[in-house]
Amino acid sequence: MHENDAKTLGILPGDRVVLTSTSTGKATADYLYTTSSLIKQGFIGVYFQTGTKLNLTDGEQVEVRASDRPLSLDYIRNKMDGKKLTREEIRTIISDIVLDALSPSEITAFVVSSYINELDMDEIESLTRAMVETGDQISFHTGPIVDKHSIGGVPGNKISLIVVPIIAASGLIIPKTSSRAITGAGGTADLMEVLCPVKFSASEVQEMTMKAGAVIVWGGATNIAPADDKIIIQEYPFKIDQIGQMLASVMAKKYAIGANVVAIDIPVGRYCKVHSVEEGRKLARQFIDLGERLNIRVECALTYGDAPVGRAIGPKLEVKEALNVLEGSDSPRSLIQKSCVIAGIALELAGKANRGEGANIALDILKSGKALKKFLEIVAIQGGKGDISSKDISPGEHYYIVRADTTGYVIDLNNHSLITIARTAGAPNDQGAGVYLHAKPGTSLSKGDPIFTIYADRKWRLEKATEIARTLRPVMVEGMLIDRVPQVREWNLGRFHNK
Amino acid sequence: MHENDAKTLGILPGDRVVLTSTSTGKATADYLYTTSSLIKQGFIGVYFQTGTKLNLTDGEQVEVRASDRPLSLDYIRNKMDGKKLTREEIRTIISDIVLDALSPSEITAFVVSSYINELDMDEIESLTRAMVETGDQISFHTGPIVDKHSIGGVPGNKISLIVVPIIAASGLIIPKTSSRAITGAGGTADLMEVLCPVKFSASEVQEMTMKAGAVIVWGGATNIAPADDKIIIQEYPFKIDQIGQMLASVMAKKYAIGANVVAIDIPVGRYCKVHSVEEGRKLARQFIDLGERLNIRVECALTYGDAPVGRAIGPKLEVKEALNVLEGSDSPRSLIQKSCVIAGIALELAGKANRGEGANIALDILKSGKALKKFLEIVAIQGGKGDISSKDISPGEHYYIVRADTTGYVIDLNNHSLITIARTAGAPNDQGAGVYLHAKPGTSLSKGDPIFTIYADRKWRLEKATEIARTLRPVMVEGMLIDRVPQVREWNLGRFHNK
Repeated sequence: MHENDAKTLGILPGDRVVLTSTSTGKATADYLYTTSSLIKQGFIGVYFQTGTKLNLTDGEQVEVRASDRPLSLDYIRNKMDGKKLTREEIRTIISDIVLDALSPSEITAFVVSSYINELDMDEIESLTRAMVETGDQISFHTGPIVDKHSIGGVPGNKISLIVVPIIAASGLIIPKTSSRAITGAGGTADLMEVLCPVKFSASEVQEMTMKAGAVIVWGGATNIAPADDKIIIQEYPFKIDQIGQMLASVMAKKYAIGANVVAIDIPVGRYCKVHSVEEGRKLARQFIDLGERLNIRVECALTYGDAPVGRAIGPKLEVKEALNVLEGSDSPRSLIQKSCVIAGIALELAGKANRGEGANIALDILKSGKALKKFLEIVAIQGGKGDISSKDISPGEHYYIVRADTTGYVIDLNNHSLITIARTAGAPNDQGAGVYLHAKPGTSLSKGDPIFTIYADRKWRLEKATEIARTLRPVMVEGMLIDRVPQVREWNLGRFHNK
Repeated sequence: MHENDAKTLGILPGDRVVLTSTSTGKATADYLYTTSSLIKQGFIGVYFQTGTKLNLTDGEQVEVRASDRPLSLDYIRNKMDGKKLTREEIRTIISDIVLDALSPSEITAFVVSSYINELDMDEIESLTRAMVETGDQISFHTGPIVDKHSIGGVPGNKISLIVVPIIAASGLIIPKTSSRAITGAGGTADLMEVLCPVKFSASEVQEMTMKAGAVIVWGGATNIAPADDKIIIQEYPFKIDQIGQMLASVMAKKYAIGANVVAIDIPVGRYCKVHSVEEGRKLARQFIDLGERLNIRVECALTYGDAPVGRAIGPKLEVKEALNVLEGSDSPRSLIQKSCVIAGIALELAGKANRGEGANIALDILKSGKALKKFLEIVAIQGGKGDISSKDISPGEHYYIVRADTTGYVIDLNNHSLITIARTAGAPNDQGAGVYLHAKPGTSLSKGDPIFTIYADRKWRLEKATEIARTLRPVMVEGMLIDRVPQVREWNLGRFHNK
């Protein structure tokens, strides 16, 4: 709108307005932006989506009026002032977020205030319930419904591809909604997408789960707890991990699918979200407490997070590794062990195993081939090839092997740097991109032995990733730098391989 | 950009990108928005302003790449975590705000974190200097340069129109930049605009001040401390008054025009920004402390803020009242007294009056007609009519008189409600709109006596304002409600006047 028109109406840029089509009477809310040149006085321009909502045509008359200030703003202001929010207040804020009645700045204000003035458990419970109530929900007429969650931060954590089919093969129901990577090299949804579609509505998730006993889909497509994504995107610029919001985000998704028991994997390590066992125990108690309030039985496993799980990082590499394990391979041991521990907890919670025997029963199911069969059933029901094998999956055609330039032991491995290299190589969107580790901490290497290989679908991405690997030096061999060069050079693949 | 293209580039909605025109090599930063329908893959749409900056034409090739994350985000995150920011960090944040390198959400995060984790005086000083350094500055080769500031919250506070000419008439230099109303019924810039243009660049302000000794212009047009407006607009939805940011905002504008002495008016009252004398004293000490750090002599006056200054609220009504005082009227006394007190402080600080004699000297200058002469000189140099008189100014043609429906004393007067009524009537953009008070607290009234008149330039606005006045009841006579009616009726002016 022209700035003079806004003045006449007494509204400021950023203010809420209600637009009503005079021909249809349809109305919608939007934010005002003003210009002194782009739009003439007496006219307004609307965004494509707003125009579509109101079926507007060029030249049509539209009524514009200042809209009421949402009560949510007062509640957010209260949180800034350190006050505790009631269930109803949080419900109003979350509902306004879902309805797009709060601007990104206003959501940021909510995020920042509840980061600084931490939410207590009552508020976290309210937030969880509000997230569930403002989205779609699933319910099954049978049970128990099982779920699992890893709180992330460890590269290569493809365990859901093994845990979910083990649990389902035991006869339990597990409708797993998972996430895509935001800052990682591949979330479970990104991995699963290598094999089959992952975008389904909540009712499709329900139907498929009734048939196969399990699914592995992308939660973002389901409209389950839709407020969550809108909140997370505002945390992203500041790398905030707000504990309360994270608890609510995880548990809302479990509550919305009607989970009765949930196993939670809390990786602990220098580069993880949780840095110490003590912190991990505290978080675990919070998950369990929140679960009790929601009538969900929760158990948490603190897991080793200082090194990647398995050796593969990046969608195709990880899927190949997981499929290989489902097909009977006995390595990588870290992946098999972690998957069975998490699956075992769920089996125990759901009454399929005695206390302390869950992991062994999970391993039996894995070894029996039943987990592979179930996994292929899941792939098939989601529209993928039900006869796929690990041999069918190849990583990116461009690769570069980083080798030790000294003899010694791998003494350090930087998860952050490995993720950065995999992302620079194109993961998770280039499915063949990633990093494959030949050596993990403690491995003894001779000079010239391969440490890791970078894969990429596109040559220029490989070149960038290789350059960055030289700067980041993600793996330390006896404290010496590896493979550092004084200048940026032109690379060609021939030289990479002959090196 | 199409969401698939964004995925390929590995960038998320809201991420910063750098756009480079391949034909001219010009580059600019912008934020990414994605769509699945509006824009085809391989194409991008840019905002009008971005297109203009790069001289883009339809169909031209543009390079898009992810941009680096500004360091400011880490500094803002530090503030969230309760850390103290260094001068250099604050300089970087403010500079990024001025360069539009931070999104509105990111500015909000800065505002909210420094509201919750209050800025200390070192940080406030850094903020003030950063605001000055990132904008235009003025310097005069003579002195002393004087300034005044009212921190607002009291309706009808038109004292600048009287204080500035008194100070200038004494021979001092006072280049007054003032604000427009954001939530009030008229800032000094809105009032002055009744008489002459108020939009000038910093160099025009300097030139005009050299000639007339004073100006009264709108600060928003000068590019003096431009970060301030961008910060304030993010505070607005939450009605935040962050003390540190307010101190910096006020003092940056004084420092940027080279002020040596500053008189600050701190209204204290139930509906003001400052609610108690104690709070007012604390704020005064902070202003004085900040002034010392900037080498500016500051004195503050705590003033009575429970009732409007004078009787008029709204641009034309206030200008008429102020001109009337300049022309020699001895009422309203509250307006004359307050103007002379504030002007007197400045005269004392600048050495034009002995301690305790400033207000009397100010009154002498006012009575002598020199202040009127100087005021008309200011109006003329800014391009207005230099022979204007209070008789030439008439408020809006539509009006409604609210009368006492009982005999008694005026015992309460709600400033907020008076402002709301004046704004509903159209102030400050409809210059004739506003409220004129016939009775102030302590006035004895008989049943049927006029309490206040609402003026408007447009009839429908008067009707809305009258309706709201009935709901808000801004003036209480002996605790009785005035003029309440059971239903919304059709109004006509004839009946209003006969009532």
